[in-house]
Amino acid sequence: MKIAIDAMGGDHAPKEIVLGAMDAIARINDLQIALIGDQEKISPFLTNDRNIKVIHTDEIITGEDEPVRAVRRKKNASLVLMAKEVKEQNADACISAGNTGALMSAGLFVVGRIPGIDRPALSPTLPTIDGKGFLLLDVGANVDAKAHHLVQYAIMGSIYTQKVRSIKNPTVGLLNVGTEDGKGNDLTKKAFLQLKEAPVNFIGNVEARDLLDGAADVVVTDGFSGNIALKTIEGTALAMFSMLKQTFMSSLKTKLAASMVKNDLKGLQGKLDYSEYGGAGLFGLAAPVIKAHGSSNRRAIFNAIKQACHMIEHNVTDTIKQAIVSAEIDKGENE
Amino acid sequence: MKIAIDAMGGDHAPKEIVLGAMDAIARINDLQIALIGDQEKISPFLTNDRNIKVIHTDEIITGEDEPVRAVRRKKNASLVLMAKEVKEQNADACISAGNTGALMSAGLFVVGRIPGIDRPALSPTLPTIDGKGFLLLDVGANVDAKAHHLVQYAIMGSIYTQKVRSIKNPTVGLLNVGTEDGKGNDLTKKAFLQLKEAPVNFIGNVEARDLLDGAADVVVTDGFSGNIALKTIEGTALAMFSMLKQTFMSSLKTKLAASMVKNDLKGLQGKLDYSEYGGAGLFGLAAPVIKAHGSSNRRAIFNAIKQACHMIEHNVTDTIKQAIVSAEIDKGENE
Repeated sequence: MKIAIDAMGGDHAPKEIVLGAMDAIARINDLQIALIGDQEKISPFLTNDRNIKVIHTDEIITGEDEPVRAVRRKKNASLVLMAKEVKEQNADACISAGNTGALMSAGLFVVGRIPGIDRPALSPTLPTIDGKGFLLLDVGANVDAKAHHLVQYAIMGSIYTQKVRSIKNPTVGLLNVGTEDGKGNDLTKKAFLQLKEAPVNFIGNVEARDLLDGAADVVVTDGFSGNIALKTIEGTALAMFSMLKQTFMSSLKTKLAASMVKNDLKGLQGKLDYSEYGGAGLFGLAAPVIKAHGSSNRRAIFNAIKQACHMIEHNVTDTIKQAIVSAEIDKGENE
Repeated sequence: MKIAIDAMGGDHAPKEIVLGAMDAIARINDLQIALIGDQEKISPFLTNDRNIKVIHTDEIITGEDEPVRAVRRKKNASLVLMAKEVKEQNADACISAGNTGALMSAGLFVVGRIPGIDRPALSPTLPTIDGKGFLLLDVGANVDAKAHHLVQYAIMGSIYTQKVRSIKNPTVGLLNVGTEDGKGNDLTKKAFLQLKEAPVNFIGNVEARDLLDGAADVVVTDGFSGNIALKTIEGTALAMFSMLKQTFMSSLKTKLAASMVKNDLKGLQGKLDYSEYGGAGLFGLAAPVIKAHGSSNRRAIFNAIKQACHMIEHNVTDTIKQAIVSAEIDKGENE
């Protein structure tokens, strides 16, 4: 397996990216990695060069760059060259922790879509209380989705969950404002009817309140609402940790208590750390493209690489390709 | 001030509703309350009858009732009679902790809209880390909103925040997938342009991640996304408390620590309890209509009554009426 990695993307690049890649080389058989980025900045962290090579470039796309324009103009940016490695079949998959919008553009314009897929979906796996996790898609690749896009998300999400996460016959829920049939806005009402006919284990509407309880293995929604849900989970968790910290620092007694449960609380934080499940897959592209979290450390990068390897080994892309061909999805004009 | 209250709505009705009303009568001057519901079930909790009366009915709308149909058919339900009290000007405002959809229907069809307001907005005040709170609207009254609805929400939300929450020149943010101008879906792109011209202190897009940090005093969004944000906040907070509890019960040491910080953690839970800010106003109706949380206890009902009194005293409805007339809102066909 060959994986191309944008060594310059993310808050802790290139150090944590390179270290994560080195860990993967050491622990995963039959893996070759191409790191794309500034040779001089990457080299200090490269402890050996077995199965790992550097493709040098000093152009980068930053978080401030306008995504589509950046991908078009910065032809030699590490993120763009990474996508090209996949396009030219030098790599089977690629990973970046950089500008999410730019990765989506490079995915769409350089790697390209699976035939029949209208819009790729950004698909992170998020934590649940029981530790099982669930796949949420789309969280922002396509903010004006139509009903048949959501059906494609359901099919892609089910295949990924079955193949990579080893969950048999995964349940699929539609994110909605209530659990009853017939609830929702125009989009969810239409999507509900189409999902009932789709070749997935559709269990109906799920509410945002029940996401972390594991209401479904795969939750489909338009990219706008999915982005709101994802960022609300992140923001609420951060706010609560911050308030918890304030609470624990408020007196001598609480400080003492804090010191007693410090490790246990770290465990709790770990439970909520969704980089444990890898990065967010950009499903619907001609090869696995993975967005690692911007704050990825060495471990998160290692997990994203492991995830890409699983996607390659289990032929996720080909399986999606075949499923989309055989599914009869109504792309009606009336949507 | 005269307030009509649905004594039969909510998980703890009628007991907590009646007790909350009694507290309000004892502590708020110049207040008269009409409790609508089953006289026999209400009486045991009525400790005096000064300034408080019961309008008897034994019909109720339950949480399972289909809202619009229930309001049309159950003409004598406590929630419907409550709204009628306002329509017939026997009451200045009304409060229910019952079926949210039914309250929205009764508000729309019985109490009626302010002229010029197209859609009312369900508007809870949610907690922020600093304790100041923010108003989020709409959270589900209107799941297929248009851009000019969001402008009306911004105007109504600003007036409420200024008059009732005493925040001068409140900041208004548009819930979106990124903070940069030009981000978003069709709806938010259009709304952004209209909000820039609206008579409010519009500060641009805000992300869901920053809501609890107090990104804006008033956050406007369509009812679908608002409902997702609200329920995701609730669900994440509940999930974290549940995981925190698990963590604290995991060993003798953590149990000891838990006993040391018990009261402090309760304080944290209190910070996140948004019934402290009252109920969710249904803004845009001809009189204050307030939805108290389904799980409202005595204190939450008292807070909702206090909130209704503030809305009456500060002429929130009339101020909105005038502001909507003078604002030139583009209701363009092209939306």
